Amino acid sequence: MMIKDEAFPVEPWQVRETELHHDLLPQSESLFALSNGHIGLRGNLDEGEPYGLPGTYLNGFYEIRPLPYAEAGFGYPEDGQSIVNVTNGKIIRLLVDDEPFDTRYGQLLSHERILDMRAGVLRRCAEWKSPAGKHIRLNTVRMVSLAQRGLAAIEYEVEAVDDPVRVTLQSELVANEDQPSPSDDPRVAAVLVNPLAPVMHEVSENGALLVHRTRSSGLMMAAAMDHVVEAPGRLDLSGDAGEDWARTTVVCGLEPGQRLRVVKYLAYGWSSLRSRPALRDQAAAAIASARYTGWQGLLDEQRRYLDDFWDCADVEVEGDADCQQAVRFGLFHVMQASARAERRAIPSKGLTGSGYDGHSFWDTEGFVLPVLTYTAPAAAADALRWRSSTLEMAQARAEELDLHGACFPWRTIRGQECSAYWPAGTAGFHVNADIAMAFERYRVVTGDHSLEAECGLAVLVNTARMWHSLGHRDRYGRWRIDGVTGPDEYTAVVRDNVFTNLMAAANLRAAAEACRRNPDAAGELGVGLEEIATWCDTADAVHIPYDEELGVHPQCDGFTTLREWDFDDNTRYPLLLHEPYVRLYPAQVVKQADLVLAMQLQSHAFTAEQKARNVDYYERRTTRDSSLSACTQAVMCADVGHLELAHDYTYEAALIDLRDLHRNTADGLHLASLAGSWTALVAGFGGLRDDDGVLALDPHLPSGISRLRFRLRWREFRVTVDTDHDCVTYTLRDGPRSRLLIRHAGEQLELSTDEPTRVPVRPRVPLLPPPQQPPGREPLGRQRDRGGD
Amino acid sequence: MMIKDEAFPVEPWQVRETELHHDLLPQSESLFALSNGHIGLRGNLDEGEPYGLPGTYLNGFYEIRPLPYAEAGFGYPEDGQSIVNVTNGKIIRLLVDDEPFDTRYGQLLSHERILDMRAGVLRRCAEWKSPAGKHIRLNTVRMVSLAQRGLAAIEYEVEAVDDPVRVTLQSELVANEDQPSPSDDPRVAAVLVNPLAPVMHEVSENGALLVHRTRSSGLMMAAAMDHVVEAPGRLDLSGDAGEDWARTTVVCGLEPGQRLRVVKYLAYGWSSLRSRPALRDQAAAAIASARYTGWQGLLDEQRRYLDDFWDCADVEVEGDADCQQAVRFGLFHVMQASARAERRAIPSKGLTGSGYDGHSFWDTEGFVLPVLTYTAPAAAADALRWRSSTLEMAQARAEELDLHGACFPWRTIRGQECSAYWPAGTAGFHVNADIAMAFERYRVVTGDHSLEAECGLAVLVNTARMWHSLGHRDRYGRWRIDGVTGPDEYTAVVRDNVFTNLMAAANLRAAAEACRRNPDAAGELGVGLEEIATWCDTADAVHIPYDEELGVHPQCDGFTTLREWDFDDNTRYPLLLHEPYVRLYPAQVVKQADLVLAMQLQSHAFTAEQKARNVDYYERRTTRDSSLSACTQAVMCADVGHLELAHDYTYEAALIDLRDLHRNTADGLHLASLAGSWTALVAGFGGLRDDDGVLALDPHLPSGISRLRFRLRWREFRVTVDTDHDCVTYTLRDGPRSRLLIRHAGEQLELSTDEPTRVPVRPRVPLLPPPQQPPGREPLGRQRDRGGD
Repeated sequence: MMIKDEAFPVEPWQVRETELHHDLLPQSESLFALSNGHIGLRGNLDEGEPYGLPGTYLNGFYEIRPLPYAEAGFGYPEDGQSIVNVTNGKIIRLLVDDEPFDTRYGQLLSHERILDMRAGVLRRCAEWKSPAGKHIRLNTVRMVSLAQRGLAAIEYEVEAVDDPVRVTLQSELVANEDQPSPSDDPRVAAVLVNPLAPVMHEVSENGALLVHRTRSSGLMMAAAMDHVVEAPGRLDLSGDAGEDWARTTVVCGLEPGQRLRVVKYLAYGWSSLRSRPALRDQAAAAIASARYTGWQGLLDEQRRYLDDFWDCADVEVEGDADCQQAVRFGLFHVMQASARAERRAIPSKGLTGSGYDGHSFWDTEGFVLPVLTYTAPAAAADALRWRSSTLEMAQARAEELDLHGACFPWRTIRGQECSAYWPAGTAGFHVNADIAMAFERYRVVTGDHSLEAECGLAVLVNTARMWHSLGHRDRYGRWRIDGVTGPDEYTAVVRDNVFTNLMAAANLRAAAEACRRNPDAAGELGVGLEEIATWCDTADAVHIPYDEELGVHPQCDGFTTLREWDFDDNTRYPLLLHEPYVRLYPAQVVKQADLVLAMQLQSHAFTAEQKARNVDYYERRTTRDSSLSACTQAVMCADVGHLELAHDYTYEAALIDLRDLHRNTADGLHLASLAGSWTALVAGFGGLRDDDGVLALDPHLPSGISRLRFRLRWREFRVTVDTDHDCVTYTLRDGPRSRLLIRHAGEQLELSTDEPTRVPVRPRVPLLPPPQQPPGREPLGRQRDRGGD
Repeated sequence: MMIKDEAFPVEPWQVRETELHHDLLPQSESLFALSNGHIGLRGNLDEGEPYGLPGTYLNGFYEIRPLPYAEAGFGYPEDGQSIVNVTNGKIIRLLVDDEPFDTRYGQLLSHERILDMRAGVLRRCAEWKSPAGKHIRLNTVRMVSLAQRGLAAIEYEVEAVDDPVRVTLQSELVANEDQPSPSDDPRVAAVLVNPLAPVMHEVSENGALLVHRTRSSGLMMAAAMDHVVEAPGRLDLSGDAGEDWARTTVVCGLEPGQRLRVVKYLAYGWSSLRSRPALRDQAAAAIASARYTGWQGLLDEQRRYLDDFWDCADVEVEGDADCQQAVRFGLFHVMQASARAERRAIPSKGLTGSGYDGHSFWDTEGFVLPVLTYTAPAAAADALRWRSSTLEMAQARAEELDLHGACFPWRTIRGQECSAYWPAGTAGFHVNADIAMAFERYRVVTGDHSLEAECGLAVLVNTARMWHSLGHRDRYGRWRIDGVTGPDEYTAVVRDNVFTNLMAAANLRAAAEACRRNPDAAGELGVGLEEIATWCDTADAVHIPYDEELGVHPQCDGFTTLREWDFDDNTRYPLLLHEPYVRLYPAQVVKQADLVLAMQLQSHAFTAEQKARNVDYYERRTTRDSSLSACTQAVMCADVGHLELAHDYTYEAALIDLRDLHRNTADGLHLASLAGSWTALVAGFGGLRDDDGVLALDPHLPSGISRLRFRLRWREFRVTVDTDHDCVTYTLRDGPRSRLLIRHAGEQLELSTDEPTRVPVRPRVPLLPPPQQPPGREPLGRQRDRGGD
C-alpha cells in the first residue's frame, strides 16, 4: 500500500502518524526504527503484535548460511551472512482487566506516533476501549541511547480514564521470534529459523537476562532488562524466564486518572570472543549505568547529542516543506545508522530492517560517508576504520581472484564476500575505488591526516595494487580495465566502464600521493619509488572512451552502439523483475546513474558541454530501478541547469521512504537515498564539489525553493552557506586561521571568520532543453503532490 | 587413474581389457556401455559389485529437481531435469558352494572383457577360485538389441573346472540402487536419492516385472526379465519380488566340465501417458518376441544391423593402429547413442553415464549429427525430429526472453531450458543456428527435402525470427548481435562473436531459401515476401569484426585487445576449476575452438591466408579445456597444412575415452569428441566441406597415416574415398544418375558409377610454421605413445 500524505503530515522536525493503519505497519516499523548504529529497534508496537516484520538487530551480529548454486564456479562464496533478528526486548504487553490491549480488538479511540528528530525518541499516545468497555490512555516513549551505546529504554505509562481498572503489564525478552515468510523478490532477506541457541537465562529482582549463541557463526549475545515501576497503590512484581523468553509482570489497580508508569531499561552486548560471564556483566553494567543516569538523564543526554549533531548537519529548505522534513528525516537516520557503529559496518538499510540480509555495499562509501564526512566526521572515520579492519580478508579474496593487493567484498557483514551472483558482485570492482577515495575525501575535507597514517595508506596501497593487476595496457599503450561492472547493473561485465576507469585512476594517484606523504610507512608496505611511478603512469594512460559522433561518453566501451531498449513494449519496472539479464545487459538501458555519477565524483574530468550532453543522453535511458540513482540525477541535472528536474529528483530521493516510492520500505530504509537527499540539496543546488581538493560551491536554487541554508565542516572550519535566488552568504566559524580560500562559481573566493561574505548567485544556463525520461519513469511523486505544476 | 595402453591393447575391431583393474572400473563401465539409443547399460560387472557407478538408463526418462539460486533472476529455470538410474536388470549374482563370486575375494585367475564392435556385444571370460578353492569358469555375453528396441539380453554360462560344485544363480531386477556420493566438479550429475516410487511388482514363471513411477516428473517405467535355463542335471528355479527388487533363483550341481547356461531377456518400457497395464503388456510383448527370436536369432540380427552400418560408416586408417581402433570405437558409440533413439534426444554422453545430468547440448547438432548425416542419415533425421518436437517449448522460452520465434535450450532432456548459469547457458544463442543448420545440412547432404517440409521449415523460420529480434542494426547499418556467448565459454556475454554472427546469417539465409522452396507452408507460418527479404538484408549486413593490424579475426568484438592470459603463472587445467570467470572472461584465453570452428563450418567466409593466420593466433591461446575442441583443431590445422599437429589432435579427440585423457570418462563417454574423431579424419585429412552446398573433398595425409579410406552417403550415392600420400581414388556406388559433380582440391571433378576416378593429392603448403600451444597444452597423449617422435 502506498503511503498517502495524510498519514504523515509534513512537519519540519518530526514524523507524525496520526492514526494507525495496520496495513502500513511494515513501512511504519521502518520509518519509526530507532538505532544508535549498534542497537537497532524496528518501530514495532510495544505489545508485539500485529506486526509487519519484528526486528531487533545488533550491528555485526549475523549467522552464516550456505549459498546454494545449481551450477557452481571457482571462487563463488560458499557461505552467506545474514543479520539475525535478536532477542526482542521492546515487548510490553498490557492486560486491562484480563483483556489484552490489542489494536485489532476493542475500540481504538485515538492513536498517534511521533518520531521526534530533535529529542531522538519515538512517542506513542493511544486511547483505547477494551471489548468490555474499559477506557485507558497509553503514553510511551522509546529511545535507543546515543550516549550509552549498549542501552535502549522505554517509558510506559497507562492511565485509567473512566472506570477503575486492574492492569497487568508483562515486560518481556523474546528470542527466536516467528518471522513472516519471505517473498520472491531477490532483494529481500533470507529467513533464518531459530537462529539463536540458548546459553543461559537468569531472573533478577526487577528484570531478567538471556544469553544466546548463533549456531554456525558462533557469536554470543546477551540481552538484559530492568524496570523502575511507579504505581499509585498496591503493586505486585514478579519475574520468570525460560530458554527463549523472560518476563517481568507488574499488576496493580488504577482509579480513573491514576497512572502506572514503568521505565524499562534494555541492555545488549555481543561478542565473538568474550565469555558468557563477561557478556552477562557487560549487560548488567549497562543496566546499572542507566539506572544511575535515570530516565530524564537519558533524555537529556540524547537531546545534547542531537543538538550537537544538528548544529553542523542541519539543512534548511524554505518553500518546500516536504523536502525540509525529508532531508532531516534522512540525516536523522544516517546519524542513527552510524553514530555508535564504532568499527562495525553501516549496512545499506542501517539497522531498520533485514532487507539485503543486513549487508553493507558500496552504498556506505559511495553515498553515506560523503554526507558524514561533512557533518559527523568522527562517524565517517569509524566507518572507514571498520573497512580497514577487513583488509586481510580483502587480501585473501584478491589472492583467490589471482589479483594483487586487496579486493573488498561487494556485499558483506563481517568482511567476506557474500555475493552469490558475480556479474553484479565480484565484477563490481569499483567498490575498491569507492572505498579508497572515501579515505581520500575524509583527508581532504577534514584535513585530518592521522587516519591515513593509521590505516588509510594500507587501503590505498592495496587497492592501487589490485587495480594495477586488474587492468592492462593494450597495444596502443592505453590502460584498460575489462570484464567489470560499473554502478549500472543493467550492463555488466564490460570494457572500460568510464566510472570505474576514472575512479581507478584516481585511486592510483591518491595512493601514489599518500605514499609520498608517508614514505616510511609506504616502505614498510613494500612500496618503492618505482611502484609509485608505475601507478602514476598507469593513471595517466587510462582509456576513457568517447563517442565523437554523438558527442557523449559511452558508459562503457561500445555502449552507445548497443541496441536501444524498446520502451514502447517493455516498461514494467523495476525491469529486473520482468526481464532477463541476457536481454538487459546488451541494451542501452540504465538501472542507475553510472556515467552521470562519474561526472559528479570526477567532475574535473568533463567539460560543461560534455556534462550537458551526457546528462541529456543518459536521462532518456535511465529507469532508476535502483534507489542509488535519483540523488545523483538530481546533482547532475542541477549542474547542467535543469533545476526543476533536479528538484523533482531531490524529492524522489528524499521522500523514497516517507512515501514508500520503491514499495519496499517495509524491508528497511534506503539509507543511501536518504543520505542522497542531503547530497541532492548540497551538491545539487549548493554546487558542492571536492574532487579537486578545494571546497567548491556554486549555489543556484530551483523555483520551488526560496532559500537554502546548510552547514559544512571543512578542515578546522564550520561553513554555513545561506542562499536565495540572488545571493549567497558564506559564514565561517571556528578555525585557527581566520581565512579560507574556496571556489565560488568556479572563481576563487576568500572567506573570513570576521564577517560573512555575500556574493551573487551565478545563474546556470542550460545548454539543452530538459530531457525526457523513459515512459513511466518521470521522477516519482512530486508532480502529483504539486498538483501538476 | 590414467588408462595405460597395456590395459586395452590396440586391436582394430574390438576393445579388449586383458585383466580387471578395480580402480579402472568407473572408466571401463563407460567404455563397455551398451546402448541402442533407447536403453543404455553401463558396463557394470554382472554380479553388481564392485562398481564405479551403477547405471541403467532409458532415453528421455528423467526426474525433475529444483534448481537453487542464492540470488535468483528473472527467467532463470526453476526446475532441472536429471537422468534417472532406472531398475537395474543386468545383475546376475553367482554363489559357488555358498560363496559369492566376487572378484575382490578368492583368486581371480584370469579376467577378460571384450567389446566386439562388429557383433555388437560385450563378452566376458573369467576363471576364479573361490576362497574355499573351488575353481569355476565364467562366460557371459551381453547385448542391447539394435533390432528390438525395448530389449537387452545376457547369456550367462558357468562351468565347474576341477571339482564338483553347487552353483546358485540369482538373476535380479533392482530399483533405487545406492549411488556413490557426488564430487565437487560441476560437470558431474546431481544425485537423486530413491527417484522411483513403486507402482507394482509381479513374479512370473521364469522371471518378474517391476513397475515404477518418478515422483515429480510422473513418468512410469516397466522392467521385466525372463530366463531360459539349461543345466546338466536337477535344477531348482524359483522367483520372488518386493517393491524395489525381484529375483529369479536357479540352483544346480555341476560336475567338472559341466555348465549351467542361462539366457536372461530384459525388457524395458516407459511412458508419460500410457497406463500401468499398457506398460506391463509392452514389456511382456518384448520378452515374448525375444523368446521367439531366441538368443542366436538376436545375435544374428545384431550382426546384420552392424554390417549394414559399417558398410557405409567405416573408416580405415592404415599406419595408425590407435586411431584405427579409436575411430571405430567412436563410430560404434555414436551409432549406439542414436540408432533407436527415435525422436528422443542424443545426450552429450549418450546413455553411458550420468555426467551432465544426461542432458543434450549443442553437441548433438554441432558434432554428432554431421557424422550421422553422412553415415546413418535416418538416425540423423530422427534426432532432428526430436528437436522439432520441442519447438513449442522453445517458442515459450523465446517469449519469456522477449524474443520472437523460438529459443532452444542450452541443455535439456525433455525440451525445457535447464541451464542454471545463463552466461554459459541462455546466452549461448548459437545453439539455435546449430540446430537450424543441422536441418539444412541434412537436406543438402541427403537430398531428402521431406524432412524440411515435415518439420525443418518451422524450425528454420522460428530460429530466423529469433535471430532477427535478437540482433540489431547499429547507426552504420551493420547488423550486430550483442550479449551472446559463442562456443568458447571462457569469454562470455560478448559483442559480435564471429561464430555466432556467421551462423546466424547462414540461419537467416537458409530460412529464406526454405520459405522460397515451400511458399505455401511458409505462408501458413505467416512468412511473407517482406519478411524473407528482411532476413536476407539482415544476413547481408552482418558485422564480422576483423583486426586489420594483426590480420586476424577477433573471436568477438575487441578480443584481440583483451589482456593476454598469464600462461607463466596460471596453468592448472582445466582453468575453470582453478580460476574465476571474472578473470577468465576478459582475457585472451580460449576454452575451445570458437573462431576456429567458424572457419570449419563457414569455410567459405574466410580466405586461405586468414585461415592460416587465425589458426596460428588461436592455437597459442586455446587450452582445450572442453572436449569439443581437439577435433575442430585437427580439422583446421590440417586445412592450413599443419598435418602432424592435426594428427596429434585427431589422436586426442579419438582417444579421449580409451585413454581417459580428460579424466572424467567415469561419468560417461564424450560423444561429441568420439564423433569428432571421424570428423578429424574425414574433414581434416579428407578435406570434406559442405557449406557451399557441394560435396568438397581435398585429401592430404600426415606422415603417420599411410592410407585412409572412408565412405560417405551423398544424396542417392555412396562415395568411397581412398587416399594415400600421392593419389586419391573416388568410387561411386548406387544412385539413379550415373554421374556426380564434386569439388576436389577446389576444382570441379565429375565422378561416375562406371569406374573409380583417380586424381593426384594436392599438397597443402603451410603459410606459417606450426604454432605453439599454451604451456602444458600440447596435444594430449600421442607424443608419449609415439615415444617422442
